[in-house]
Amino acid sequence: MSDFQFDKIALIGIGLIGSSIARAIKLHGLAREISISTRSPLTLARAEELELGTFYTESAAECVKDADLVIVSVPVGASGAVAEQIAPALKQGAILTDVGSTKASVISQMQPFVPEGVHFIPGHPVAGTEHSGPDAGFADLFEGRWCILTPVEDTDAEAVRKLRSFWESLGSRVDEMDAEHHDKVLAIVSHLPHIIAYNIVGTAEDLETVTESEVIKYSASGFRDFTRLAASDPVMWRDVCLHNKDAILEMLARFSEDLAYLQRAIRWGEGDKLFDLFTRTRAVRRSIIEAGQDIAEADFGRHIRHEK
Amino acid sequence: MSDFQFDKIALIGIGLIGSSIARAIKLHGLAREISISTRSPLTLARAEELELGTFYTESAAECVKDADLVIVSVPVGASGAVAEQIAPALKQGAILTDVGSTKASVISQMQPFVPEGVHFIPGHPVAGTEHSGPDAGFADLFEGRWCILTPVEDTDAEAVRKLRSFWESLGSRVDEMDAEHHDKVLAIVSHLPHIIAYNIVGTAEDLETVTESEVIKYSASGFRDFTRLAASDPVMWRDVCLHNKDAILEMLARFSEDLAYLQRAIRWGEGDKLFDLFTRTRAVRRSIIEAGQDIAEADFGRHIRHEK
Repeated sequence: MSDFQFDKIALIGIGLIGSSIARAIKLHGLAREISISTRSPLTLARAEELELGTFYTESAAECVKDADLVIVSVPVGASGAVAEQIAPALKQGAILTDVGSTKASVISQMQPFVPEGVHFIPGHPVAGTEHSGPDAGFADLFEGRWCILTPVEDTDAEAVRKLRSFWESLGSRVDEMDAEHHDKVLAIVSHLPHIIAYNIVGTAEDLETVTESEVIKYSASGFRDFTRLAASDPVMWRDVCLHNKDAILEMLARFSEDLAYLQRAIRWGEGDKLFDLFTRTRAVRRSIIEAGQDIAEADFGRHIRHEK
Repeated sequence: MSDFQFDKIALIGIGLIGSSIARAIKLHGLAREISISTRSPLTLARAEELELGTFYTESAAECVKDADLVIVSVPVGASGAVAEQIAPALKQGAILTDVGSTKASVISQMQPFVPEGVHFIPGHPVAGTEHSGPDAGFADLFEGRWCILTPVEDTDAEAVRKLRSFWESLGSRVDEMDAEHHDKVLAIVSHLPHIIAYNIVGTAEDLETVTESEVIKYSASGFRDFTRLAASDPVMWRDVCLHNKDAILEMLARFSEDLAYLQRAIRWGEGDKLFDLFTRTRAVRRSIIEAGQDIAEADFGRHIRHEK
């Protein structure tokens, strides 16, 4: 018997997340074979150059053949098409999971194609950077981060246990919740921040009274933080917006309502209201640092490593 | 003749900015004497423990006596009161400057008190972190950052030249512009980002359907970036909001207008509009990195130094 968690793992999509998973599988020796597939011949060639797997193919169906674990890491809008392509080739008893940032939509897209005898367990490792593509991945991306599984009804408990172990081997902590709740949580902690960041960078770019060069030069005063999120993969984020619409619109409505309150306080010089909000938000940062989800160093430790 | 740029520099306020200036003055040997004043006896004692200066007093007037350069680093709402206190004690020929994030308001507060023969040159080093107080400062805070001077009409050119040299000695690059333009530029690159960050953290905290613990746990997916700015000094930011009202309200209106456009695109599933915005914002980040105003490493280089 082998020591591998899985004999063969198939990775559909080899961008930031897929390639980080590949690197982590290799680092921790979790599979004998790593089969990799992506639609782009260029990306596939690059994955091979980087030696991320043991087998490379443009065919998703060929990729998943005999695989014990199949991980779909594509923009959420492509989940349904991928499921349709791989369904006939999936091995009985295989675990099929994904890494998408929205879960209800992914389930409704993929579930109809999942054959009897295949364990479909939607997942979402809550980790990432603003970079994309196979070169952007790194093995410890998931270290200390949470991975959320959203199993559908009657999912095989043993299959869930195996998938949990897999993510734990990558350094993740694992939570389970239903897809609808996941989508609400992520709408506020991830989707809204990205949309707001994209929006403010767009607003700044469109100004007539302030030049783009001024925006760039003085960006260290706050703006540059937003440009990081706003440099994230456009296809991924377009799909997130389209596939978690209801939760995002709800969070946007609340955000705008709160902003109107703040705007009114500024207009009418209500310093106390401003001070109250600006004080209680400090505590949230402290909690995040205590929970090990960010570093305590000033400015993300950035000034220390600043290129001069 | 001494090699010092100034025989005596007086620092009114010894928080993040004041104490960083003090450390940089010492590091680069820019003054024979550094006189420090702050209203809080505790902060003053801490500044003395940290050996930030050569003389310490709770009296701003006593602090500026015989000083050749006076730097006021207090929340912008306190500028007028400080100017009134120090005015009678200012030395003839001295340069008086400040570091406030708003300039028109500081000028209107301080200018009326400035005695004939004193060179008042408002300034703003565009640098900082989310931490505050005398312990938060560091000598290279201004390294590679811009400092904006907003001289009023008929300012002595030689005095401006001396102040420019001072900031350049701290590693800054120096720009000059009028106060009104400064306030518009900073409203978009700094004030709006902070207000938005405070607001989104407040919105997240107020949700009933998502627990605070969930917001904390999954914050690495975007939210945590905003909590850094939202952990900034509440008094400083209350004052900024109250003292740059018009420019901030203008930028908020544009931001909200753009957000409504984005929200509508999400509601109606207009993927092209989302993709277009999400693509053009990427270029802004690249420009910031090329200008040396942020580091290129993914996630602000954070994963490398992450506390496990």
